[in-house]
Amino acid sequence: MEHYYALIMAGGGGTRLWPLSRGTTPKQFLPLVEDDSMFRVSITRLAPLFTPDRIYVVAGERYLEALRKDAPEIPEANFILEPSARDSAPAAALGAAVIAKRDPKATIAILTADHHISDKPGFRNALATAYELAQSGTIVTLGIKPDHPATGFGYIRRGELLQQINGLGCYKSLGFTEKPDKNRAEQFLASGEYSWNSGMFIWTAETALREYARQQPTMHDHIRTIQAAVDTTTYPQMLAANWEKIDKISIDYAVMEHAERMAVIPVDFGWNDVGSWEALYGVLAQDPQGNITKGSLPQRIDIDSRNTLVFGDKLVVTIGVEDLIVVQTDDAVLICHKSRSQDVKKVVEQLKEQRKSEYL
Amino acid sequence: MEHYYALIMAGGGGTRLWPLSRGTTPKQFLPLVEDDSMFRVSITRLAPLFTPDRIYVVAGERYLEALRKDAPEIPEANFILEPSARDSAPAAALGAAVIAKRDPKATIAILTADHHISDKPGFRNALATAYELAQSGTIVTLGIKPDHPATGFGYIRRGELLQQINGLGCYKSLGFTEKPDKNRAEQFLASGEYSWNSGMFIWTAETALREYARQQPTMHDHIRTIQAAVDTTTYPQMLAANWEKIDKISIDYAVMEHAERMAVIPVDFGWNDVGSWEALYGVLAQDPQGNITKGSLPQRIDIDSRNTLVFGDKLVVTIGVEDLIVVQTDDAVLICHKSRSQDVKKVVEQLKEQRKSEYL
Repeated sequence: MEHYYALIMAGGGGTRLWPLSRGTTPKQFLPLVEDDSMFRVSITRLAPLFTPDRIYVVAGERYLEALRKDAPEIPEANFILEPSARDSAPAAALGAAVIAKRDPKATIAILTADHHISDKPGFRNALATAYELAQSGTIVTLGIKPDHPATGFGYIRRGELLQQINGLGCYKSLGFTEKPDKNRAEQFLASGEYSWNSGMFIWTAETALREYARQQPTMHDHIRTIQAAVDTTTYPQMLAANWEKIDKISIDYAVMEHAERMAVIPVDFGWNDVGSWEALYGVLAQDPQGNITKGSLPQRIDIDSRNTLVFGDKLVVTIGVEDLIVVQTDDAVLICHKSRSQDVKKVVEQLKEQRKSEYL
Repeated sequence: MEHYYALIMAGGGGTRLWPLSRGTTPKQFLPLVEDDSMFRVSITRLAPLFTPDRIYVVAGERYLEALRKDAPEIPEANFILEPSARDSAPAAALGAAVIAKRDPKATIAILTADHHISDKPGFRNALATAYELAQSGTIVTLGIKPDHPATGFGYIRRGELLQQINGLGCYKSLGFTEKPDKNRAEQFLASGEYSWNSGMFIWTAETALREYARQQPTMHDHIRTIQAAVDTTTYPQMLAANWEKIDKISIDYAVMEHAERMAVIPVDFGWNDVGSWEALYGVLAQDPQGNITKGSLPQRIDIDSRNTLVFGDKLVVTIGVEDLIVVQTDDAVLICHKSRSQDVKKVVEQLKEQRKSEYL
């Protein structure tokens, strides 16, 4: 696939995996599922579809060292650094602008750095399919087949079948719905017409910049000014000067919700956003009692526990407990009922309010 | 009370409070209930009944430094060191021999170093009462009023009322029963005739040594040989040579079960052996949700938990959990259902089998 680029959005935080995920080592740098970090796995699963020079990474400046350490094969020029966090729309626009400056015929897959995918060949097949579909100027989204009425994801409704490519149906998208309530989520699931929004989009750089021009003209102008300086000595200065003027806004809200010619490819390649400790529990291999032990140097003794996830690097002993998440780090221990793992972010909020930055 | 001495047995281990209680810092050195260590509290609650020169401590040599640090007011000569652990009968005999050598008219209260007592004046009143009763050559035991059919304690059955002293009834003892099964424990409780064996005995040194001579003549001979050397330069040598020849045996089994002229004073001074994390939970003050946070530098954030005990010195976060014991130390974390806290000793056994001495 000629001129095909991956743009990995690696700037996220992930407070719901506290106390492991912290400001300096957010979720994408943690080896949560496989032996490598989520970011490293996000890179390696792209081979052989993308050679390292075709992989771009966009993230905050403060993560550059960690990113380069985890992906030394990627050229330094492919790390696109945000001077400050501006949410996903400016990050994707900057990525498209930098790549298009170097290769105007680029097709770009916007991908995530902190999601788990178990069927990697299936994932690459979907990316290859999306590439073909995107050549006509279509914006392609990968829609995850829902297996429960989740209220934590956006949903995409599919319309008529456009094409069948590589064994995958490509459908016209009938639009996005933000995170629904439980009732609506159940209706979506029952209808069979909806997919979860994975945050993975495939478009040509030309289409991308055209949509920004149409829907976000001010942002587009700033990005074009920065683009003119890419690979020149004035780039840092132009980036800094224009970036601060750009609004904080998500790509869904800024572009995708009102984009023209959207398509969705419903996929089922074992995607999991690992968006909570409970989600991580669902991804990892359990022993016959449903227990999972994970971490850098985990040591565990258990007597009669069931359905627990223990994450740590010291000796953790569990006796007669059920449905618990236990996370031990150097300075903190979390003990959370599995059904309450969404509340971990409330703890992070409390720590912020109490200005206990040493724990954040 | 003339010639009244306290002999504190401070050599115990306490594996059921792992991971806090360890080989080098067993239970008696931990500030489990009050701000001071259990041992320190055991000393201070004796005042004003016993001046420091009347308090003796018997323990293994390896604990001497910690004991003296916790009780600097006690004369060095009052620390009686066991060359090796021989259980409670030899320890009590050695204590009686040393004290009797210095004061043949001594009356000795054998006391524990790691039990909690909430009503300290009540405790001292019972000790004063026992002193009077012991003058006639009676062996007096303090029997704890049982509040549930515990299977973890020995029981003492009381017979006829002998005397009423200081408002306490003193009864003839009808003998000891080792830890009963649940059925028998329930019968004992229902009968109203039984007390728990607290391990606290009061006797004159003369009575003590006479009982050893009658029931344990070999041990008695060794102890008398050691006694002859007390406060002479040959003491260390005589102690070492004779101590190794003495059998390991508990005072209950060696002396008390078949002693003559036993009396029991049923007492109710808020005694708790703190023999498990669940027992400790029962002693400490709870917040309205039944939660307890304790430790040297405890920091805790909780969302919706109930009936938990968190012991630690780092940040411990609990979310939506119930009836849990959480103990965090530098190298280990225990998460145990409250009803299973007896099983902590199984963990210690596993660690011993696996030769993980760093955790013991």
